[in-house]
Amino acid sequence: MTLTETSPLDFRSDTVTRPDDTMRRAMASAEVADNVIDIDPTIHALEERAASMLGMPAALWTPTGTMANLIALSVHLQRGDRFLAPKDAHVLTNELGSAAWLAGGMPYPLEHDAGPGRPKVETLAKAIGPRNGPYYTLRTTLFCLENTHNAAGGTIIPPHEHAQLLATARQAGLRVHLDGARLWHAAIALGLPPAALTVGVDTVSACLSKGLGAPVGSVVAGTVTFVEQARRMRQMLGGGVRQGGVLAAAGLVALDRIGDLAMDHEKARRLAAGLSELGWEVNTPETNIVLARVADVAVTLESLTAVGVLALPMGGKVRFITHRDLSIDDIDEALNRVKAGGHP
Amino acid sequence: MTLTETSPLDFRSDTVTRPDDTMRRAMASAEVADNVIDIDPTIHALEERAASMLGMPAALWTPTGTMANLIALSVHLQRGDRFLAPKDAHVLTNELGSAAWLAGGMPYPLEHDAGPGRPKVETLAKAIGPRNGPYYTLRTTLFCLENTHNAAGGTIIPPHEHAQLLATARQAGLRVHLDGARLWHAAIALGLPPAALTVGVDTVSACLSKGLGAPVGSVVAGTVTFVEQARRMRQMLGGGVRQGGVLAAAGLVALDRIGDLAMDHEKARRLAAGLSELGWEVNTPETNIVLARVADVAVTLESLTAVGVLALPMGGKVRFITHRDLSIDDIDEALNRVKAGGHP
Amino acid sequence: MTLTETSPLDFRSDTVTRPDDTMRRAMASAEVADNVIDIDPTIHALEERAASMLGMPAALWTPTGTMANLIALSVHLQRGDRFLAPKDAHVLTNELGSAAWLAGGMPYPLEHDAGPGRPKVETLAKAIGPRNGPYYTLRTTLFCLENTHNAAGGTIIPPHEHAQLLATARQAGLRVHLDGARLWHAAIALGLPPAALTVGVDTVSACLSKGLGAPVGSVVAGTVTFVEQARRMRQMLGGGVRQGGVLAAAGLVALDRIGDLAMDHEKARRLAAGLSELGWEVNTPETNIVLARVADVAVTLESLTAVGVLALPMGGKVRFITHRDLSIDDIDEALNRVKAGGHP
Amino acid sequence: MTLTETSPLDFRSDTVTRPDDTMRRAMASAEVADNVIDIDPTIHALEERAASMLGMPAALWTPTGTMANLIALSVHLQRGDRFLAPKDAHVLTNELGSAAWLAGGMPYPLEHDAGPGRPKVETLAKAIGPRNGPYYTLRTTLFCLENTHNAAGGTIIPPHEHAQLLATARQAGLRVHLDGARLWHAAIALGLPPAALTVGVDTVSACLSKGLGAPVGSVVAGTVTFVEQARRMRQMLGGGVRQGGVLAAAGLVALDRIGDLAMDHEKARRLAAGLSELGWEVNTPETNIVLARVADVAVTLESLTAVGVLALPMGGKVRFITHRDLSIDDIDEALNRVKAGGHP
Repeated sequence: MTLTETSPLDFRSDTVTRPDDTMRRAMASAEVADNVIDIDPTIHALEERAASMLGMPAALWTPTGTMANLIALSVHLQRGDRFLAPKDAHVLTNELGSAAWLAGGMPYPLEHDAGPGRPKVETLAKAIGPRNGPYYTLRTTLFCLENTHNAAGGTIIPPHEHAQLLATARQAGLRVHLDGARLWHAAIALGLPPAALTVGVDTVSACLSKGLGAPVGSVVAGTVTFVEQARRMRQMLGGGVRQGGVLAAAGLVALDRIGDLAMDHEKARRLAAGLSELGWEVNTPETNIVLARVADVAVTLESLTAVGVLALPMGGKVRFITHRDLSIDDIDEALNRVKAGGHP
Repeated sequence: MTLTETSPLDFRSDTVTRPDDTMRRAMASAEVADNVIDIDPTIHALEERAASMLGMPAALWTPTGTMANLIALSVHLQRGDRFLAPKDAHVLTNELGSAAWLAGGMPYPLEHDAGPGRPKVETLAKAIGPRNGPYYTLRTTLFCLENTHNAAGGTIIPPHEHAQLLATARQAGLRVHLDGARLWHAAIALGLPPAALTVGVDTVSACLSKGLGAPVGSVVAGTVTFVEQARRMRQMLGGGVRQGGVLAAAGLVALDRIGDLAMDHEKARRLAAGLSELGWEVNTPETNIVLARVADVAVTLESLTAVGVLALPMGGKVRFITHRDLSIDDIDEALNRVKAGGHP
Repeated sequence: MTLTETSPLDFRSDTVTRPDDTMRRAMASAEVADNVIDIDPTIHALEERAASMLGMPAALWTPTGTMANLIALSVHLQRGDRFLAPKDAHVLTNELGSAAWLAGGMPYPLEHDAGPGRPKVETLAKAIGPRNGPYYTLRTTLFCLENTHNAAGGTIIPPHEHAQLLATARQAGLRVHLDGARLWHAAIALGLPPAALTVGVDTVSACLSKGLGAPVGSVVAGTVTFVEQARRMRQMLGGGVRQGGVLAAAGLVALDRIGDLAMDHEKARRLAAGLSELGWEVNTPETNIVLARVADVAVTLESLTAVGVLALPMGGKVRFITHRDLSIDDIDEALNRVKAGGHP
Repeated sequence: MTLTETSPLDFRSDTVTRPDDTMRRAMASAEVADNVIDIDPTIHALEERAASMLGMPAALWTPTGTMANLIALSVHLQRGDRFLAPKDAHVLTNELGSAAWLAGGMPYPLEHDAGPGRPKVETLAKAIGPRNGPYYTLRTTLFCLENTHNAAGGTIIPPHEHAQLLATARQAGLRVHLDGARLWHAAIALGLPPAALTVGVDTVSACLSKGLGAPVGSVVAGTVTFVEQARRMRQMLGGGVRQGGVLAAAGLVALDRIGDLAMDHEKARRLAAGLSELGWEVNTPETNIVLARVADVAVTLESLTAVGVLALPMGGKVRFITHRDLSIDDIDEALNRVKAGGHP
């Protein structure tokens, strides 16, 4: 068998996971209705379930996590507002900048000085600045967290740090939005229910597709009033689908599976250990992301592709994400391939 | 059997149609991939097929028709631009105004003086105004058409009028976007291929859900360059779904069915004739929409609901839409119910 | 003396008026301060005076009327809001459309069916639509009036119609903004204080430059809270000038002069009467605007320019505006020139 | 004489300078015209003069520096663009965030690792990132510089560093905007003509008010095409004033005076030296800004105010700005007052 005959092992993202038969059957048999002029029962069931799991009063289904975050920021921010987020947070670097031009806030990135993906409480406090500045100055009104933090390497915010950051933000009158695209991973890794990680936040987004395998969909959760405003914003942005129950059915299956993520974390640890043995400089994965520091990212990615291992560049490093469509055996096979031909 | 035992007959919209077994099987077996970092093969196949049917070089799948139109307007319009559209066009009255604040153009509605849903060529020409106005004035750069025109009663733009309007717009240097949410209906009613109705337009949107029964999805089509820009805008708005092939599979089935719309038009004619016999003042339906002029819209809708016939208010009238989930027998049953208890 | 030797008589706009010696002396001796970090005393005095004259709690100076209206609309409108304005109102046709893309509302023009420049109460009521529409529809939240209405020919809203329109708008929960660029003209023509024309409105803009002769400046007035928000928006748009007292001093002189506008109205009547005698089809001016219906606007404007009379095109007609820099003798001279060479 | 009888010495900003008699006479005798429908001759003269001094093909007068920068960014940026600027640059921290929501770009701040106010070339290069990223990522299209850099303490970009940064930005296809609110100060301090500091930039803004004493006004300069677009944007934002020549006349006087700024720099050095002798920890001023590191900014500002010395907080320090309305004697008097009662 030559390498050209093998199919590539895809570590580029956990968004590449495909719906399995269970999920497809659920989609095929989903009860649906027009979710604009009525309420699609399966979307409704998903939203109820997600809200409950996230410990929030209400939730709204969205086609993507981009839209979930964009809606939250659009509801929270007014022109003349400034929002804080850890450096390289998804709302700063991805989404094509819609947080700025569409939601209307001026972003301010915070250093990761408390650990990868999270600022110190003092850094947050200093960045918030005075509450009653002159009328001609920006007002800091929103603090965004990302848990796990993708660009920092799937890192988890320790609950006691989360609590301190939240206390600081709320005492200063800020709202808090949590980008929880991979909040499920943090919860599983910590052995806590997801709702334990949303204490004190105003809104949280969470993804049904990354890692959990639903083909399409995210949710954004908050108060009932927030979800009313969010529903209107979803419609404005073109996210008001009709019989979305076919997708929500997959989402419900996804939510049954968050326990499976523990395996993805195990795979990441195995991959990192293996790469380390092969001389790579990698992080100690907290969840399902392995970041490798290499001499030349483009060269490494090319050589990995040549041996059938796909990864992506991320902030000057090479990022591998483990997920449900890669087995433990696939990890070992990937390490064999890297050993055969890849180099850091 | 009492009326309370019957299930209501739903004429509120052709968006209420549910995917049938064929469509659900197609969804369940669709080949999919991550359509952001790769290309989902089923989305790709749908886009190719839709582009071909619409006679355009390329097409892009979107979660909703709202997003399809919003993307087109956002790509076409710059700040300081004015766009023209027939009065009560969807891009003016629906979409929560995103055409204005998000796409960035100042709308200018045109009278329907050539017939319901369409302006005279002279009206268009006058509204365009001078091409080289002073720097401090709005520049008219875009003309939007809607075929069929929903609020006017599902009316069709006659091809020779379309040609004259297009010639006028293009000679004045305007771009033309066609909101073709129900373009399929116009094509079927005219006995022409859909591509015959897009001659000369720069971009066209078309819906896979309204009438055709796909649960979710629309397309927007134009040049290859337009679709590149549109893809970026779709991502910004949060419409960049991952394994959307599950939805595109339903869309492909939908595109096989445009011929079925002829039956919906027959149903509309039957409904209109029946209502007219009952003394209602209704339009002569050109496609699948029946508009009834009544003394008090709210009162009529309430009495209709009481006898199990659902409709919607539209521009001071009562709108009935026929669709694939209502049979010819359902039309007759609806007329019986109206006779029993509804009144105009 | 040949015509080529004469200087043209400028009827293009009352914005062409130049500050006279009194005004220039006021500017040269104005007490000033940094109006961003402190309060410029002359701007403050002007704002107090303007608020009082307009019968509003507070006012804010702005560099232009465009900015005054833009600020008001930006404060009033949220995304998803619709605002109503009489057809061809300045906020719809001028300002390069910033009311749409920047302030964020979807405009809806109202027919002038109660008279030039103003809709019937029933037209307004119908356009407002239901208050509690479904979440996915635009919400009509603002009604804009323009008094006098420029494009309609400097027409005045009769106070009893104003009262009825206001009552209708307010009962429906709408806010009301009055574009009073030439409110002074309406007040003088009616023999009423300007404050009598702002009864019930939430905000009003008024111009210090058009007709009154100040070189630069407008005001926007409303509640104290509104002005706080407006001050912030002014800063965002780049209207927060420093020692603007030099301009406000001219504005204070301008406000002393609103009585002089009666002469401009007399000049307009004289011009209209003269043109009518010469066979032109003109309006009966209510204030300082004369609109002439001509066969070909471009041809007429060219022939007028050739004889030293400057006018502008406006909505398919030729517009003449009288102002303080044209004397009664200039009107007669203009009529002589038109007689000699101009033609409608 | 007690301190309460003395008038305070105002070091809060060089924007507090008031027009002197020469400037006021120029304003009072300025030739003016309607600068929207015609060209105001004095504005035109100022724009020609400023363009020449800045070494750019054309310039546009604006009411404020905020608007000058906002116009430049709005013309340069498209949705989905990212722009780079040194941390704490005015376009990031001031302007109430309009660079983000209005101009439409996602900002990315650069560390001051080459010296106060400026990034290293490598930092810039790294931040620019790959030129041909995937369609779903932000594109870095603009680099903003600020010379002198206000928040860094009025620091100058050394010309050889400017050249290297420009080369890096331009090779990567970026446009470059220079916020030159205090570019005159940099030029005078370096002994170079201002045009020597704009080599390679696409656009530059410069202020007529800060330090030079004009009451109102800035300019933004670039190509003729840029200025055409900028003029349209100025109109949209409400900056299209009419007889602005009264302000431009002051601006022309201001431009005669850039040589005077050398004295302001001397005053700053004197102030810094004096404060240092008194035990304060201050920067070595490169131009007219003195930054003092103090234990508690609010306490220090209060004690300074008590002895009649006004300053402002800036980035956790106390900022003093010297300007033409403070004499050398005022500096000495300020030091006396600080000695008497102020403390760091």
